[in-house]
Amino acid sequence: MSGRGWFITFEGIDGAGKSTQVDRMCERLRESSVRVTRTREPGGTPIGDRIRGLLLDPASSMHLVTEAYLYAASRAEHVRSVIRPGLADGALVISDRFVEASMAYQAEGELTVGRIAKLNEIALDGLEPDLTILIDLPVVRARERLMRTGNAADRLERRDDLYFERVRGRLLQIAAAHPNRVFVFDGEMDPAELHEAIWRQVKTRVGIIREER
Amino acid sequence: MSGRGWFITFEGIDGAGKSTQVDRMCERLRESSVRVTRTREPGGTPIGDRIRGLLLDPASSMHLVTEAYLYAASRAEHVRSVIRPGLADGALVISDRFVEASMAYQAEGELTVGRIAKLNEIALDGLEPDLTILIDLPVVRARERLMRTGNAADRLERRDDLYFERVRGRLLQIAAAHPNRVFVFDGEMDPAELHEAIWRQVKTRVGIIREER
Repeated sequence: MSGRGWFITFEGIDGAGKSTQVDRMCERLRESSVRVTRTREPGGTPIGDRIRGLLLDPASSMHLVTEAYLYAASRAEHVRSVIRPGLADGALVISDRFVEASMAYQAEGELTVGRIAKLNEIALDGLEPDLTILIDLPVVRARERLMRTGNAADRLERRDDLYFERVRGRLLQIAAAHPNRVFVFDGEMDPAELHEAIWRQVKTRVGIIREER
Repeated sequence: MSGRGWFITFEGIDGAGKSTQVDRMCERLRESSVRVTRTREPGGTPIGDRIRGLLLDPASSMHLVTEAYLYAASRAEHVRSVIRPGLADGALVISDRFVEASMAYQAEGELTVGRIAKLNEIALDGLEPDLTILIDLPVVRARERLMRTGNAADRLERRDDLYFERVRGRLLQIAAAHPNRVFVFDGEMDPAELHEAIWRQVKTRVGIIREER
């Protein structure tokens, strides 16, 4: 397993509301005196942040396979220098995105979900989340939210809606394939209600894990 | 196979004399009216050069697995946007380093030569050099040459001699495992004589390939 701590990941398309929910969850856990390590992908380490810069730069042009390897590079460092040490230290590690984002976003053209899993195998070194929260939202609604924030679109966000529909579909397929680990939440819910629903799931899951151990 | 062209790689530890020999070979081939594409790793593409910048920056700190993925990312782009198109166009593509450099340089700690081969499998997409020229030189001699050039050591060159001895040993093992593709040359030879020896091998190999095809 993943050491003494817990490893929880949040997944969802851009604009689904992941970051807001990660914020609320970390705050709630800290109020409950749980030691939390908050992190994200791509990034989460100094070299990971430099790789993130390459990936999100609108001027970067690269093949999807190259992109998949850059995400895996960032992840290899993240697993070894942030997530595993946090878990070994007994923390609850929360990552805003992890390997399932790669499977959903990069499984195009010559890459299948299975090939991305294979490409990431050495990076992951056997690590799997204890719980994955998937916040699902129709692409058109997510796009509206992104427009409201008024930020310039980065290289990835500028892809078209059809691409994001495929990403959303792959995330839902991953959830269906792992019903005991990945839980889907409706991103159209009021953020406070959504937080309560996720919070109940986290408490239940951490409780189950405590008993298992 | 690799299309209509030929793919030749040069390998060797830093200071072995690879770049000098690649220069001479490209010049000789052009004099013989052979269309040549000269490239190198890491790099060879715009995104590859940015990845190269991360890898060689003395301020970069990263796990060897992360490093291996960054090399593979650069290679995935290199194969798809430079080497394969060059071969399809009938050129003789010469790369200053390729996947065997990864196998030799990054096979430390949790990574074995076999795991690096596996990590690179999707990046390579089945591509293998038609001929690999390994220029072998004792580490102490290579270090003397690097000192003479007076360049500031990059992040990789600053590693110790014991590490480079292991790298050299792994390159020789790779050569021994592929006696029909990888040919070892003595880097202590006079550069002009060394060039003649490599030139004979290239002519022979390209001749053999022509017959095979």
